Amino acid sequence: MDEKLSVVGTSPPMKGSGERVKGTAVYTVDLQPPGMLHAKMLRSIHAHARIRGIDTSRAEALPGVKAVITHREAKILYKPTHGSAREYGLDDRVRYYGDKVAAVAAVSEEVAEEALVLIDVEYEVLPAVFDMEEALKHGAPVIHPEREDVDGNVLDFSVQEWGDVEEGFLEADNVFENRYTTSRVCHCAMEPHAMLASWDGDGNLTMWSSEQTAFMIRDSLSEALGIPRSKIRFIVPPHVGGGFGGKYESAEKIVVALLARKAGRPVMLRLSREEVFHTTRTRSPCVFETKTGVKRDGTLVARQVKAVVDIGSYAWGGIMASRAASYMTLLYRCPNIKYVGHGVYTNTPPSGAMRGFTSTPIHFAMESEIDEIACAIGMDPKEFRLKNQLHVGDIIPLNGKPVTSSGLREAVLKGGDAIGWERRQKTPGAEGGTIKRGIGMACYSHYAPMLKDTERSVGNAVLKVNIDGSFHLLLGVPDIGQGLRTVMAQIAAEALGGRLDKISVTLADTSTTPWGTTTAASRSTMETGGAVKTAAEQMKGRLLELASGIMNVPVEDLDAKEGIISAKGVPEQKLTFGDVLRHPDVFHGGDNVIVKEATYNVPTFVPPYGTAFAEVEVDTETGMVRVLKIVAASDIGRAIHPRSVEGQLEGGMQMGIGYALTEELKLHPETGEPLNNSFLDYKVLRAAEMPEMEVILVEPVEPNTVYGVKGIGEMAVIPIAPAVRNAVYNATGAAMRELPITSEKILRALRG
Amino acid sequence: MDEKLSVVGTSPPMKGSGERVKGTAVYTVDLQPPGMLHAKMLRSIHAHARIRGIDTSRAEALPGVKAVITHREAKILYKPTHGSAREYGLDDRVRYYGDKVAAVAAVSEEVAEEALVLIDVEYEVLPAVFDMEEALKHGAPVIHPEREDVDGNVLDFSVQEWGDVEEGFLEADNVFENRYTTSRVCHCAMEPHAMLASWDGDGNLTMWSSEQTAFMIRDSLSEALGIPRSKIRFIVPPHVGGGFGGKYESAEKIVVALLARKAGRPVMLRLSREEVFHTTRTRSPCVFETKTGVKRDGTLVARQVKAVVDIGSYAWGGIMASRAASYMTLLYRCPNIKYVGHGVYTNTPPSGAMRGFTSTPIHFAMESEIDEIACAIGMDPKEFRLKNQLHVGDIIPLNGKPVTSSGLREAVLKGGDAIGWERRQKTPGAEGGTIKRGIGMACYSHYAPMLKDTERSVGNAVLKVNIDGSFHLLLGVPDIGQGLRTVMAQIAAEALGGRLDKISVTLADTSTTPWGTTTAASRSTMETGGAVKTAAEQMKGRLLELASGIMNVPVEDLDAKEGIISAKGVPEQKLTFGDVLRHPDVFHGGDNVIVKEATYNVPTFVPPYGTAFAEVEVDTETGMVRVLKIVAASDIGRAIHPRSVEGQLEGGMQMGIGYALTEELKLHPETGEPLNNSFLDYKVLRAAEMPEMEVILVEPVEPNTVYGVKGIGEMAVIPIAPAVRNAVYNATGAAMRELPITSEKILRALRG
Repeated sequence: MDEKLSVVGTSPPMKGSGERVKGTAVYTVDLQPPGMLHAKMLRSIHAHARIRGIDTSRAEALPGVKAVITHREAKILYKPTHGSAREYGLDDRVRYYGDKVAAVAAVSEEVAEEALVLIDVEYEVLPAVFDMEEALKHGAPVIHPEREDVDGNVLDFSVQEWGDVEEGFLEADNVFENRYTTSRVCHCAMEPHAMLASWDGDGNLTMWSSEQTAFMIRDSLSEALGIPRSKIRFIVPPHVGGGFGGKYESAEKIVVALLARKAGRPVMLRLSREEVFHTTRTRSPCVFETKTGVKRDGTLVARQVKAVVDIGSYAWGGIMASRAASYMTLLYRCPNIKYVGHGVYTNTPPSGAMRGFTSTPIHFAMESEIDEIACAIGMDPKEFRLKNQLHVGDIIPLNGKPVTSSGLREAVLKGGDAIGWERRQKTPGAEGGTIKRGIGMACYSHYAPMLKDTERSVGNAVLKVNIDGSFHLLLGVPDIGQGLRTVMAQIAAEALGGRLDKISVTLADTSTTPWGTTTAASRSTMETGGAVKTAAEQMKGRLLELASGIMNVPVEDLDAKEGIISAKGVPEQKLTFGDVLRHPDVFHGGDNVIVKEATYNVPTFVPPYGTAFAEVEVDTETGMVRVLKIVAASDIGRAIHPRSVEGQLEGGMQMGIGYALTEELKLHPETGEPLNNSFLDYKVLRAAEMPEMEVILVEPVEPNTVYGVKGIGEMAVIPIAPAVRNAVYNATGAAMRELPITSEKILRALRG
Repeated sequence: MDEKLSVVGTSPPMKGSGERVKGTAVYTVDLQPPGMLHAKMLRSIHAHARIRGIDTSRAEALPGVKAVITHREAKILYKPTHGSAREYGLDDRVRYYGDKVAAVAAVSEEVAEEALVLIDVEYEVLPAVFDMEEALKHGAPVIHPEREDVDGNVLDFSVQEWGDVEEGFLEADNVFENRYTTSRVCHCAMEPHAMLASWDGDGNLTMWSSEQTAFMIRDSLSEALGIPRSKIRFIVPPHVGGGFGGKYESAEKIVVALLARKAGRPVMLRLSREEVFHTTRTRSPCVFETKTGVKRDGTLVARQVKAVVDIGSYAWGGIMASRAASYMTLLYRCPNIKYVGHGVYTNTPPSGAMRGFTSTPIHFAMESEIDEIACAIGMDPKEFRLKNQLHVGDIIPLNGKPVTSSGLREAVLKGGDAIGWERRQKTPGAEGGTIKRGIGMACYSHYAPMLKDTERSVGNAVLKVNIDGSFHLLLGVPDIGQGLRTVMAQIAAEALGGRLDKISVTLADTSTTPWGTTTAASRSTMETGGAVKTAAEQMKGRLLELASGIMNVPVEDLDAKEGIISAKGVPEQKLTFGDVLRHPDVFHGGDNVIVKEATYNVPTFVPPYGTAFAEVEVDTETGMVRVLKIVAASDIGRAIHPRSVEGQLEGGMQMGIGYALTEELKLHPETGEPLNNSFLDYKVLRAAEMPEMEVILVEPVEPNTVYGVKGIGEMAVIPIAPAVRNAVYNATGAAMRELPITSEKILRALRG
């Protein structure tokens, strides 16, 4: 890349950070239109039941209650924006403990809550199934009997093969078979879900919601409610307190919209923290049965994974299981790969996207297995990985296209140095004493669905200019706290030759911004950023063209920087953008003589690469694990705002250590009732519990994306759990294959 | 016009009317962001004074008070968007009774009001001048001594002449000289002024305000506060309860913005009705000395007006007086026209735009005089007007261009029929009895500043499409209650061949909509409507092009109606817009594959023409006037939404009768204190007091505008007062030359 970048690659203060620091940032719950009512949801106390009858008359009679709705008014079956899933507004069947039964709008949350108690529900309790492997069996309770497209409880069945694994296993010197299981964890975004619906007198709906996508939810609402998209204005407020894949769903929005319509007043629903834990999407628990063949020298020849993915009672998309296959094809050379996956319904909380999708769990399985294989054949697991890694020019089996850039080797080497890999003991658990230290690592790649032919992955941007040379950038995707607003303004400033402080950014308003997919799947910088750059380049081109006419200098001799257009070699000849726009030859009245919009298709799928190293201390008498240090070394292509990339990687460590060691949403084995749906009982790592963190950014030359960027949001978490697990393995010799790796499990493994 | 129109010319329910009817419409005062404070303004109790000192310490110490500002922090001199006027945030000189002295932000309006009392102001009282002709004299108190560009108190002095009036008077058989005076009246929009300012932690300002323009106020704020336009988001809420030229100013917005910045919290200022009356713009009182020469046969040969326009203590623009000249050139053929005007400051409430600008007062003078002249030379005033009217092809002196269309003759004939002109007594006041009936009329034309070379008069529109074939229209101008939103959607639907119910309209948000001038000067339908039509035609063109590819039919054989594209002659070959956009050849991901924006310059100035007829009954014993019927017959070019045009004309009658008979903001002759600044004392006509109303729309073929439209907003009021006045003249023979025509003045005229 021969461009001289001046804004991209710097870390100015985040737009919006002042508000967050001062406590004046406006989140969804801060909105309070006149006449607003508060909603509460009556939730099922059975994991599986048919609703024989609901009597809402006592609730409706309670003073202050303005509307109650049940499945009788809200049995709306709709198709979420992805895959083959279906969701309901409210149904006459409940499928998990906590499922929506009825909704109340009242003058206060207290009155609404009081009304919930007055709703009489007659349930016909049905047998429930909580275990994903039980749910696969013939004779298991069928959770969606109304759906002919679901086979038993299997929504998503997938067999994908590249090469021929059976032949591969025959060629192998060693074949390893293992079983790994991962747990149900929660996103734990700091801001609980909240949404506000308001209808105008003409039948137009406006909704504000803390969300990762405005347009895709609007589209679901349009379909569910049967009204044109133009009659719905869906706005994500400027501040969203985290998403991680968990703010991405329509079901409650449909109910709240219907409730508001019935009440004839705006209705706000804020979920309690307890509801966020068990009634919004969780990460799918998975079972992976792995079978891997390697040559004596460590060459991978065949990899097979049989996966069962517990998609819960409702699935965000019918692709949880099938997409996991792709993650097997990106990281290591292997001629024979096979994946068999089942996505299966159970009577457990809904399940769906969470940072890294099924990449995070399957990486736990695959990267744990690598260490066990390396140990078994007497090879350093770092060397094993470097030996097998896909190199630039290698064909990616998933799409048959070559790897165009990879910083993996550099990341592994630098990360290894940073953790002190040479200190690592060769034989796991060989160290003496009861407090044992270990060092582990894991690599990752990831498939973010950026391919034009598989997903609607376009970025759109509109850029308009004011005659004082300041700009407004309009984008359809929200900033969910990670800094999208700042990064997009940086790309615009860079491509414009403009000043960052003269670019305002408006996001995620379906009436005024161009269509935007979603702030998810590590895509925004690549996808929307591409459109921003194109629009800004067009704007700059037009401004230079206008300046050329005024200055009487050929356009190719002009360039802009910091909002000043100057002639090459003649520095005294210069005009600000404002000078150009206010020039009598140009100014035809008001601003907006120029609006540029751009649509951008990411030209190819660009796999990110990276690694994490962990050092741990395990007390073999208590099973207690203390993570001492994490090093994340990531190929991010190019960091637009390095500090925010570091922030994402540090956040990923917090989430990944929790996934490895402490987090799991537990359900009562007989009733399916959540047992730890609060921050008191569900254990996320606090700041003081975090280890030393080190971030290494690797920036190879990636020719196919805007400024060479790659995604990072999900990658931050993917390698952490297997790296920690492998460090525990290195420390103790105990091959932990079940998440979370609790003290009890370690003690059991060490003693049994 | 050979187009077959299907949406334009119909009167569907107004967008937003449902909300207004149900009481759920959101106006500025309904906004209440978290932490919002309430502002009150300390106002001067002297008409002219210097502020020697202000002590705010007692106010600041009052619990609940969060910020107080005075001229020490807010002496910001800025240039409003028009003309040579200057305004202050807060100044250390007050120039009228009610002028801004200090502003307080507190937790409630009550606390803020309490705090006002605790502010100690030391005034040095200065001599004041309330009479515009006194203010012209040498030695009069100078109101803006700090301004070198103001000559004494004269901000705006103008001499304009076409031909040579002195020669004209020599050619005339009769020369008439008269003096007419008009009064200070108020807009009386139903919604009082309200504004809300909120700063974010990064120094970005968002303001919501009940306003006729978003962008021009934003631009003033940007200049006054010294921050880029991109850092200010100015939004006019979806509902504004009327404007009439009175919601168009920046001074209080600057103060509230500064107050909010100091308080560090959002601040709402709502003006009380009393404040609206005397501290927001009023209509300029005027004195017109007319001199008119006519031939024996009624041919006008010379017209001269000497005008003094009282622009109050602050002028919205320095063009109040000078623009009045233009209105002399549009309606009647006259080879010699001269205008001499003074716009003069007085120590009275600010003055500026009000429905018809200075056209409304000067039409009162000119159209009253016509009746007196016609009577004097024994001619029917209707015939006099028809004889002298400018015809199509006649050159308009103002711009040297020909009249391209005129419905005046048709309007006069139809209006005359409707009022029963033949019943009109030939000799004014000749009828016997004490209850006398009379019929009068007046004509109008108007100069709305639409010329590209005189004003920034461009319309802008952005249109984006959703893949279900619904649309979002983004415009920079607000709907102030007259139905702009509906009319613009109709133009879009017509030009698209689309459905009105599938077009949403978002208005007047400086961050997201394209630049818009203002909803004023009867311009929106012509100006912004032009851009809407262009954008919609481009959008339609693109959709037909796409359909052509899919249907394999040449694009010229395709047309769209109601959102369905069909092949000419082959009705069974058809696709909806949605079918086209969702077609796999077209759909590249999400909506917004197409955004069209357009900028439109009204190609020429198009004068509107029309007339009003009034029938009145005058009780000569009490001086009481009862208006029995008003007929408004207007050349509106084309009515996009006829019912809303009728509504505007009926509203104009209400305002015009008030101007004629009952309305006047009175000031104490010694102190300048307002005496009737409330609806109890200031007499606007109520619904039950309205006469029979009849509206006649004349639609000539106007080739130069979108669908042939002309403006109507101001025209509705312009002819009403002189028509009523001429009816009183016809009934009684009393030539009333001073507004308002109260009972007292009539009795005085009849008796004296």
